[in-house]
Amino acid sequence: MIKGHGDDRYQFNLPVKADFSSNVWYAGLQKGLEDELRNKINEVIHYPDPGAWKLQAKLEQYLSLSADTVMVTNGGTEAIYLIAQAFTGATVTIVEPTFAEYEDACKLYKHQVQFLSWEKLNSETSFSTDMVFICNPNNPTGQAIDEHILEQLITQNKHTVFVLDEAYIQFTHDTASMIPFLKRLPNLLVLRSLTKSCCIPGLRLGYIAGRKQLLDRVRVYKMPWSVNAMAITAGEYILDHPTEFEVKRDTLLEETYQLWEGIRKMPEFKVMPTHTHYFLFETLTGTAAALKMWLLEQHGLLIRDASNFYGLGPGHCRVACQQADDNKLLITALRKWTLS
Amino acid sequence: MIKGHGDDRYQFNLPVKADFSSNVWYAGLQKGLEDELRNKINEVIHYPDPGAWKLQAKLEQYLSLSADTVMVTNGGTEAIYLIAQAFTGATVTIVEPTFAEYEDACKLYKHQVQFLSWEKLNSETSFSTDMVFICNPNNPTGQAIDEHILEQLITQNKHTVFVLDEAYIQFTHDTASMIPFLKRLPNLLVLRSLTKSCCIPGLRLGYIAGRKQLLDRVRVYKMPWSVNAMAITAGEYILDHPTEFEVKRDTLLEETYQLWEGIRKMPEFKVMPTHTHYFLFETLTGTAAALKMWLLEQHGLLIRDASNFYGLGPGHCRVACQQADDNKLLITALRKWTLS
Repeated sequence: MIKGHGDDRYQFNLPVKADFSSNVWYAGLQKGLEDELRNKINEVIHYPDPGAWKLQAKLEQYLSLSADTVMVTNGGTEAIYLIAQAFTGATVTIVEPTFAEYEDACKLYKHQVQFLSWEKLNSETSFSTDMVFICNPNNPTGQAIDEHILEQLITQNKHTVFVLDEAYIQFTHDTASMIPFLKRLPNLLVLRSLTKSCCIPGLRLGYIAGRKQLLDRVRVYKMPWSVNAMAITAGEYILDHPTEFEVKRDTLLEETYQLWEGIRKMPEFKVMPTHTHYFLFETLTGTAAALKMWLLEQHGLLIRDASNFYGLGPGHCRVACQQADDNKLLITALRKWTLS
Repeated sequence: MIKGHGDDRYQFNLPVKADFSSNVWYAGLQKGLEDELRNKINEVIHYPDPGAWKLQAKLEQYLSLSADTVMVTNGGTEAIYLIAQAFTGATVTIVEPTFAEYEDACKLYKHQVQFLSWEKLNSETSFSTDMVFICNPNNPTGQAIDEHILEQLITQNKHTVFVLDEAYIQFTHDTASMIPFLKRLPNLLVLRSLTKSCCIPGLRLGYIAGRKQLLDRVRVYKMPWSVNAMAITAGEYILDHPTEFEVKRDTLLEETYQLWEGIRKMPEFKVMPTHTHYFLFETLTGTAAALKMWLLEQHGLLIRDASNFYGLGPGHCRVACQQADDNKLLITALRKWTLS
């Protein structure tokens, strides 16, 4: 079970004024969705559809995919664990630094895990393992790899199953979803989240898209009713109102740049480049753990101590862009940290 | 994945006037809980506590159990699948007829499954298998086994782990929970549901109680965030207002008896005895599948076709007591079936 992650405010009895610690879209709960959830609260007196089959069909239609090529999951996490389980004992490459759950799930299911640095990933990379986990755009670095490079990579490594986590695909201009490529890539599983861009991580809703034959291998391990009734309700509402849930990327990435630039100007921090609305920086004075607690206690600001990501060090922090005023609070607080 | 279960209205485009098909308490969503869920809708913008640890601690306190002897789960189903997984490849006895998920989960995890008829279960029963699944009161029969008989049984079979599913324990006078016995029974895991008696099956919330050492073996397989934020909110509210969620057993069981007796009077049905608010009956004319569709299409009444339970036949139906007026509708409709 995960120790050390974003959005961990439940661990502290301290007020949080602004939360930079998770990569969820900052816009809050969309009004129409909020009303829908409120109006349908009474549906929790019924069991949910055991396999979320209606939502699955709706997603397949929305994504122009054929029947049984989507599986709705209890967040992206259930997708990761089910895939790891379906390939128990496989050899796996994880492109790092990245989300710790790939490694945790693979180790639980006795995979032989090896790591490849994100920087070394290109269209010529050759894989000898049964599976590869790639997060695109990557968490926690915000780096993105072009979809056509990925296509070449997946085509050239026919005997490797690629698990491509696109939880943050709506938050970048620099790559696109591989879902339209599924028809010609039988060795690809795409993970998507319906919660990051719609700001409902508490409901737990994600899905896997992939060839029926490959997905059926995963489906065997899925227990009934893993996706709750409110998550299904939300998923249906989102698909019925897709334009209302489009992330305002231009504004978001411009604000991210302002925040990034604000931190970059302080020589006490080393800021990493990003293609998305979150990024890494390293504090060169003190540790990420100390900085996180100081920001929370002194300023009510929550960031992600990213030192526990494989490949990162004790000074690494991750922040996701918030509203402009909140971003300013963080910059001001970090300036105080450099003077303290 | 389950095929054929209760509360399957989502499969039909037909109005349901009264639903006898699931064993959930008929009272509907409790007003205070409904308000709480509505008021806290906005919490879904945050990730839930990954292990529902606060709710776990609250349950441990409520049940007078020590730390780490409770694990909160995504409904009782996650509990069943995690236990089956933790004991992969074991020999298992399932006391039947019973909830199909025990068998499904055990088969998924390559257990050698054998069945024992509920009628043969008594304090002298000797088990040669690693595990036993018992549902008490039992679903779908409504039969209950006295807690002291269970205590003797569990004590005498020290080398067998007993998985005791108490999802319906609040719905009977004839047995009590084994949770107070946990201190002296190291080979016992008790499954509980927070959704049946509180009428929130859509939220998915249950738990396992058991000795830390035994539960730790199961906890290894638990993925983070499997329990969603609304379920955690509901669980905390229920524990803060326990008396408001007490099932009105006397009334419920009296109404159950009226329904049971109403069906029993018709010679075309064979009604089985019960200790709870649900029971089995067999239609001696036609099949359960035909009766179910006829009741739904002609009368808007939904029952459970129970023919797919191991050990039951094509005529078996399960019904759970509903409000008195609804029960009368069912009796009237069944009378018409006997004349049709």
